[in-house]
Amino acid sequence: MLMKEKPIGIFDSGIGGLTVLRQVRREVPKEDIVYFGDTAHVPYGTKSKETITKFSVENVKFLQTFEVKAVVVACNTASSLSLDALKAMFSIPIIGVIEPGAKRALETTKNGRVGVIGTKATIHSGSYEACLKQLDPSVKVFSGACPLFVPLVEEGWLDGPVVSKVAHVYLDQLKSFKIDTLILGCTHYPLLAETIQKTIGPRVRLVNSAEETARQTRVMLDRLGLSDRRKDQQVELQKMRRRKDQQSTTFYVSDEPEQFRMLGERFLGQSIQSVAKVGDCFSYV
Amino acid sequence: MLMKEKPIGIFDSGIGGLTVLRQVRREVPKEDIVYFGDTAHVPYGTKSKETITKFSVENVKFLQTFEVKAVVVACNTASSLSLDALKAMFSIPIIGVIEPGAKRALETTKNGRVGVIGTKATIHSGSYEACLKQLDPSVKVFSGACPLFVPLVEEGWLDGPVVSKVAHVYLDQLKSFKIDTLILGCTHYPLLAETIQKTIGPRVRLVNSAEETARQTRVMLDRLGLSDRRKDQQVELQKMRRRKDQQSTTFYVSDEPEQFRMLGERFLGQSIQSVAKVGDCFSYV
Repeated sequence: MLMKEKPIGIFDSGIGGLTVLRQVRREVPKEDIVYFGDTAHVPYGTKSKETITKFSVENVKFLQTFEVKAVVVACNTASSLSLDALKAMFSIPIIGVIEPGAKRALETTKNGRVGVIGTKATIHSGSYEACLKQLDPSVKVFSGACPLFVPLVEEGWLDGPVVSKVAHVYLDQLKSFKIDTLILGCTHYPLLAETIQKTIGPRVRLVNSAEETARQTRVMLDRLGLSDRRKDQQVELQKMRRRKDQQSTTFYVSDEPEQFRMLGERFLGQSIQSVAKVGDCFSYV
Repeated sequence: MLMKEKPIGIFDSGIGGLTVLRQVRREVPKEDIVYFGDTAHVPYGTKSKETITKFSVENVKFLQTFEVKAVVVACNTASSLSLDALKAMFSIPIIGVIEPGAKRALETTKNGRVGVIGTKATIHSGSYEACLKQLDPSVKVFSGACPLFVPLVEEGWLDGPVVSKVAHVYLDQLKSFKIDTLILGCTHYPLLAETIQKTIGPRVRLVNSAEETARQTRVMLDRLGLSDRRKDQQVELQKMRRRKDQQSTTFYVSDEPEQFRMLGERFLGQSIQSVAKVGDCFSYV
């Protein structure tokens, strides 16, 4: 098999990264994808750099067993804390979600005041602020950790009075800083977009990294000659593959698959046929 | 060193088990204790039996490096799903929190209607119900999972409007079943006792496993001739040890120690001098 015919690997601590997968599938529909959710170790956002990097390295090693041609780190926490380590350790191209999110935010802001929300680990790492400032030193960045958003989404509590109250606790101060753009710096947060928008006010534009990450993934594959163009060349193959499009993503998790499948459909906006559990949650290390 | 002079090992997925440690220290103040919080893998309550057992086995193996004479599983989830496996695998005595909690609840109830709240894994395991019914087949048991309670406590949100609203969502139905006793089936929940009591009503008695687990630990050590009686015999040693009483518990975690230390003091109701991180979160496997 040619390198370009090999799958793309995507990983996250759990189901949040499916919001990125969704965009990647739109952007490069011809690619085969292996998605890995490290549900035995979820959440990452409350843990240390050392531990998150350890898990992330294992995830890439697992994806490598499928000979993936590139890896998308579909997790803001792992992208913030471990992307450099992963790039140093592995020779395949690896793309994170921070720089795409920062880039999109700078294209969006009019007043140069950008808010960032994410897990504790992401916010404390300062990754978004550093990236935004590197791209535009004049930008003003205001950050806030929202640690309860992930468990709320994992519970399926996406709106209602509890979520609304929690959102006010986290966002009211951020609102007072007159930001006009807010980066949803966690792949879970797009599911709370409606509540977040209502709380932060209609004048603030919400930015999520998924779209831009997917676009950059396509550009990178093209640039490196790694895009799978088989369908461009063979009409029959194209038809055949289109029929199996639903199956061209394979899902793996490190813990119980059923919960992932059920909640995952909500994240992906599509049904998930099957999810396989990695035999032993450590066997791929 | 004699077997009886060796420490007791206590583990939990994180800081919740400190509510048990607190009672164990009261019950057997002469014992040395090694506490291990598996913070790299917290929470357990949303994960599968296989994964929780894997983690629990590793925790006992880590505690065994201190030659512990007995292990207290200070976690309802691990006790519910992994106690049998641990007992089958290790030769040292191992005590969980389910049976003590069930026993205390049966001593407490007047109308034979007992409620149980806990993590998803604990509630779905049916461990409390099975244990209660075994001790008293006539008891009526009403259970409910409260998955957001752990993240709320971990965030330090112990009262206020958010916690109160969440408690109503989880407890209102349970209240309608006319229970007179409610088992706090998760070592985090005693910190929410005030809110839980307010929500469930003043006539319901709250039961937490910690006290009875500590009592059973003392009884078990006595019965097996494993109690450390050095201080009974040597007054000088007693004085010396009393001075170092604060240090007779050693704390280890598998991730960042500082967060554990800070929040842990709240759980323990005492200051924690130092917490060591296990060098590499997998090195003890």
